[in-house]
Amino acid sequence: MWTFDAPPLEYWKGRYGFEPGKAWLEHVQLSNVRIPGCSASFVSDRGLVMTNHHCARACITAVSPRDTSYQEAGFVSRDEAGEKRCTASYADQLISMEDVTARVRSAVTAKVTAAQVAQRDKAIDEIQVSCQTATGLMCQVVTFYQGGKYSLYRYKRYTDVRLVMAPEEGTSFFGGDPDNFTYPRYDLDLTLLRVYDNGQPLKAEHYLRWNSNGAREGDLTFVVGNPGSTGRLLTMSQMEYLRDVQYPATLAGYKVQIALYKELAAQSEVNKRRYENTIFGLENSQKAVTGYNAGLIDAAIMARKAAFEKDFRSRIMAKPDLAAKYGQAWDNIAKAQKELGSFAVLQQFQGFGGGSNLLNLAAGLVRIPEQEKLADSLRLPQYRAQGMNRLKAQQTQAIPIDADVEKRLLAMQLTMAQKALPANDPFLAAALGGRSPEVAAEALVNGSKLGSVEARKALLDGGSAAVLASTDPLVALARKVNPLATKHAMRALKLNTAISANVELVGQAIYAAYGESMPPDATFTLRISDGVVQGFPYNGTVAPYRTTFYGFYARSAEFDDKPPFKLPPRWQAARGAVDMMTPMNFVLTADIIGGNSGSPVINRAGEVVGLIFDGNIESLPNRFIFTDEIARSVAVHTKGIVEALRKVYGAARLADEVETAGVKK
Amino acid sequence: MWTFDAPPLEYWKGRYGFEPGKAWLEHVQLSNVRIPGCSASFVSDRGLVMTNHHCARACITAVSPRDTSYQEAGFVSRDEAGEKRCTASYADQLISMEDVTARVRSAVTAKVTAAQVAQRDKAIDEIQVSCQTATGLMCQVVTFYQGGKYSLYRYKRYTDVRLVMAPEEGTSFFGGDPDNFTYPRYDLDLTLLRVYDNGQPLKAEHYLRWNSNGAREGDLTFVVGNPGSTGRLLTMSQMEYLRDVQYPATLAGYKVQIALYKELAAQSEVNKRRYENTIFGLENSQKAVTGYNAGLIDAAIMARKAAFEKDFRSRIMAKPDLAAKYGQAWDNIAKAQKELGSFAVLQQFQGFGGGSNLLNLAAGLVRIPEQEKLADSLRLPQYRAQGMNRLKAQQTQAIPIDADVEKRLLAMQLTMAQKALPANDPFLAAALGGRSPEVAAEALVNGSKLGSVEARKALLDGGSAAVLASTDPLVALARKVNPLATKHAMRALKLNTAISANVELVGQAIYAAYGESMPPDATFTLRISDGVVQGFPYNGTVAPYRTTFYGFYARSAEFDDKPPFKLPPRWQAARGAVDMMTPMNFVLTADIIGGNSGSPVINRAGEVVGLIFDGNIESLPNRFIFTDEIARSVAVHTKGIVEALRKVYGAARLADEVETAGVKK
Repeated sequence: MWTFDAPPLEYWKGRYGFEPGKAWLEHVQLSNVRIPGCSASFVSDRGLVMTNHHCARACITAVSPRDTSYQEAGFVSRDEAGEKRCTASYADQLISMEDVTARVRSAVTAKVTAAQVAQRDKAIDEIQVSCQTATGLMCQVVTFYQGGKYSLYRYKRYTDVRLVMAPEEGTSFFGGDPDNFTYPRYDLDLTLLRVYDNGQPLKAEHYLRWNSNGAREGDLTFVVGNPGSTGRLLTMSQMEYLRDVQYPATLAGYKVQIALYKELAAQSEVNKRRYENTIFGLENSQKAVTGYNAGLIDAAIMARKAAFEKDFRSRIMAKPDLAAKYGQAWDNIAKAQKELGSFAVLQQFQGFGGGSNLLNLAAGLVRIPEQEKLADSLRLPQYRAQGMNRLKAQQTQAIPIDADVEKRLLAMQLTMAQKALPANDPFLAAALGGRSPEVAAEALVNGSKLGSVEARKALLDGGSAAVLASTDPLVALARKVNPLATKHAMRALKLNTAISANVELVGQAIYAAYGESMPPDATFTLRISDGVVQGFPYNGTVAPYRTTFYGFYARSAEFDDKPPFKLPPRWQAARGAVDMMTPMNFVLTADIIGGNSGSPVINRAGEVVGLIFDGNIESLPNRFIFTDEIARSVAVHTKGIVEALRKVYGAARLADEVETAGVKK
Repeated sequence: MWTFDAPPLEYWKGRYGFEPGKAWLEHVQLSNVRIPGCSASFVSDRGLVMTNHHCARACITAVSPRDTSYQEAGFVSRDEAGEKRCTASYADQLISMEDVTARVRSAVTAKVTAAQVAQRDKAIDEIQVSCQTATGLMCQVVTFYQGGKYSLYRYKRYTDVRLVMAPEEGTSFFGGDPDNFTYPRYDLDLTLLRVYDNGQPLKAEHYLRWNSNGAREGDLTFVVGNPGSTGRLLTMSQMEYLRDVQYPATLAGYKVQIALYKELAAQSEVNKRRYENTIFGLENSQKAVTGYNAGLIDAAIMARKAAFEKDFRSRIMAKPDLAAKYGQAWDNIAKAQKELGSFAVLQQFQGFGGGSNLLNLAAGLVRIPEQEKLADSLRLPQYRAQGMNRLKAQQTQAIPIDADVEKRLLAMQLTMAQKALPANDPFLAAALGGRSPEVAAEALVNGSKLGSVEARKALLDGGSAAVLASTDPLVALARKVNPLATKHAMRALKLNTAISANVELVGQAIYAAYGESMPPDATFTLRISDGVVQGFPYNGTVAPYRTTFYGFYARSAEFDDKPPFKLPPRWQAARGAVDMMTPMNFVLTADIIGGNSGSPVINRAGEVVGLIFDGNIESLPNRFIFTDEIARSVAVHTKGIVEALRKVYGAARLADEVETAGVKK
């Protein structure tokens, strides 16, 4: 994930014999745009912009007429006049970058951290404002290496963005949650937008030429876009904490929740529909965390990380000034992580989260008056400033509460606590009082009035006195548990603050030790990643470097055309018309992460050959350590896009536009 | 894997509400036939027999004309006159079973094991011969539960078997070694044979009616065939030995061999072709052993096994007579396994195997005269009786030896030994003499004449004296290593013999403890397994219960139609003619293992809906412990067979034959 002001020219030359000129890089940079949360690119001289369907969801929904969901039915504008403006959308084109580290640093003269932070933020703000005033551009100072480097990024913002074409969600997200994060894959995760300028399609000076042959096996390719965030600079002790403490707890929680909701879903058709999304969501989170964790429990990957950290620390220790400044950071982090681990179980179970909504509401009622008495900086973070207002508002909103489900959730939470805590634990004593989790949950929920807005509002308005006087059994429980839970939360807060401060030092140290030979962690700013189009071993056999329309129709047929494998009507109708051999998706070894969605895949010539939309399940550990043995990025193939536009969506005008853009007529 | 004389009627009734009558079971039994190494079934009233392509390889090759390989090109007989007799083939139809345990037991009166074995074998032989004389049938006494039960199986043998239709190997084994043991899958692993009687197609009284709708999701199905062998009765200590000692060593060996051959293959196009099959073979063995091992390293599966063994042993210990007879068996096995493990590394590396062919030949030359002096029963097993003749013959045959490859193999072997053995080990001293593995291998191979048949013949003919006098460095090395290697081999032999004797006791104990509620380990005799047609979770998503022709064409296209994903010409030509929605393969939860190849899958009505040909990779651990959460058997779908016969192979006469057999015309 290289920045455009520090492309790895030597590495590219050595590894691929690829030597792009300044013009190539500048053209590619200017052909890309950043949209909210995603990446995108110009693909015609009339301002046509390509991105993912899931990146344009807000726009697609906003422009749908009252009686039609374009999200579901798809949208194809027959002509430019029919293209629909997405009022809340914009697209930012990165015009230039400037290293402003010295300017930021020179503004920081204070010796106290809080004052230093204030000086730094003020300096950054001034740089941004003066840039904006001088240039009229959107200016942003980007913090790389947790403060190792500051760069001023200047963007031209386009605010007239219109929806041109979007397939049905059944096509863009074919295979739904099950196929999400996996490959082989068959998704046309595409939306075409158009940037207008002064009411006319933008005469884009820079746009990516379209290559309808698309990506072929073994091709060198580049992904250009805005990766959001990575954890590549986490230290070993942070990763071990995730592996040994946090992820096991998270996964255990998902497991019991999934089991519970599946049991509820099995009770009736109504429940099945009611909990379908909850189960899918939990299973997808489970899939993701299991994937992240896969790298952490892989001895070979962790050994690689350990070797890197050893080298890194020895570089720092070799220079006295660096050693003095950064040398202690790793041990400080490790110490704090260790202490966090020492009471993680207590923090998790002597508290309110992970189960019953009613118990959570009770906790809020107990805590709001208590926290309100404290100065903002002494409060639990979620009770500071606007947070307090949000929490109060929640208490007075009608929330659908199903008493039976609450009992199950509370019993689940108590059962887990019972397994994790010693028999004489004060939380268990307060919550169970010798009863089984099921009996206790039944009594607590039956006895509570907190399902009613009025009851909550009365307690909220009554403040401390009302809370203290309440005989509601959940409020009584929350009163007893609150001192314990708050003690753990404050202790964890202190430790995490210490970790953050030291993590900043590690980030700066990496820049000091390796300079730009080590790209900075992702910052949702423009990067370029190199990779090769290549299949990978999977499921005991091999996954192909690309899939085809044949495979798309196959996967639908093989699940009897049932959702989420149902073919939208347009594709049913086009069955005889499309060329089944057309490539649909393909995989490449380039490094991507959330935020890269919508990134173009380009070839040596800078032509677009694909559209990134996901990673395979084997790529999930890349959040922490990048490997490319079996991890792959997944993209839509340009040939598939053109075939679909022409044969399925009746959008030959758009296929013609991308294929002939820039070709002299 | 239930026997037909002890079907689990209560279990079927309880689980599926399925209550087959005697007639159903008898009809199914008589509709199946056993062919060498495989299973098969009658599917028409004209003696048509369905089995796997890979089960008929010998026949297909034997009837191919000199200038055509039917294996490669496929074969379709246009009419019965063109059906080609496979002279070496036969098909055995199981007519009846009879419990002969009492007869066998009563013949055993001796008190010494060797005499007991002789009496038992004699009794079995007499039962078989008298049955054969009386009935004219092929009679076989089958040993269940390692001697817990003996049954006399009577077969009618059909010897006039003719080849009717076989697809190309490119279709039957599409996806080749990579896709082997996996699913989703796209193989038409089918061969049609016909049994003739008196020169006419057999008027089969019992045959399976054909159901062209085939298997559907959720269907109850049965697999009927002859599973070859399972290790379900292995004790915990045997499984732990495999997991902790044998499989890790085997897999480590595969790993270095694969790396070596891949390096050789990368050197030239010639080498690539030369070692392609070796690499595929090694990778497939690696895949299989990794799969078997997956169950052993799965804590949940092993816990299930441990719980079973605990229950089993407590049942035995609860009855004094059983306790006296069988109670010690587990501990005896565990003790012997432990001792085997204590010198497994020495046995592996202070020896001759796992690397250089020349060193192996040298070992044979040293051992042959030495072993020949011993009584047969005192020799190493491979030097007994016919084994000795085979080993001598090998020495005098021309074997292609590539000196460079030999050096690599020997160096690899020595490198592994160096890593595994202490520095002062006598094998290392003899082989390396202070040199590096590469230098030692270079000198040993360069100095040896054993690549020449003449040199070997001279040493063989010269006997002990010649071997003792030889200055060939590999012979000299083998002389030094032989006492060590033989000591380990004899020690292991003694321990394995003790294990075998106790394993027999465990087998008998299981029958004593559970009777026929626990089916016996596989014996390559007729069994029936129940299962449900059902997809499974895989690769982060779900595998469908069936694949389609769409998927077959997809997988070929997605690998650019390159082998082993190349479509045979008939399928290329039929692209526009076949119905792409046609099911091709499907999966079910039934329990199968090698020997079940060619088994029909039948529905409640006893109609054939599929043809077993493999298991998915998740089913490999089933060798030891059967589970059906993600393990699946893989079958060809009857609808796919009929569509292929009609639209691809121009064999409507055969499609008509199976579809109309038994239908009143």
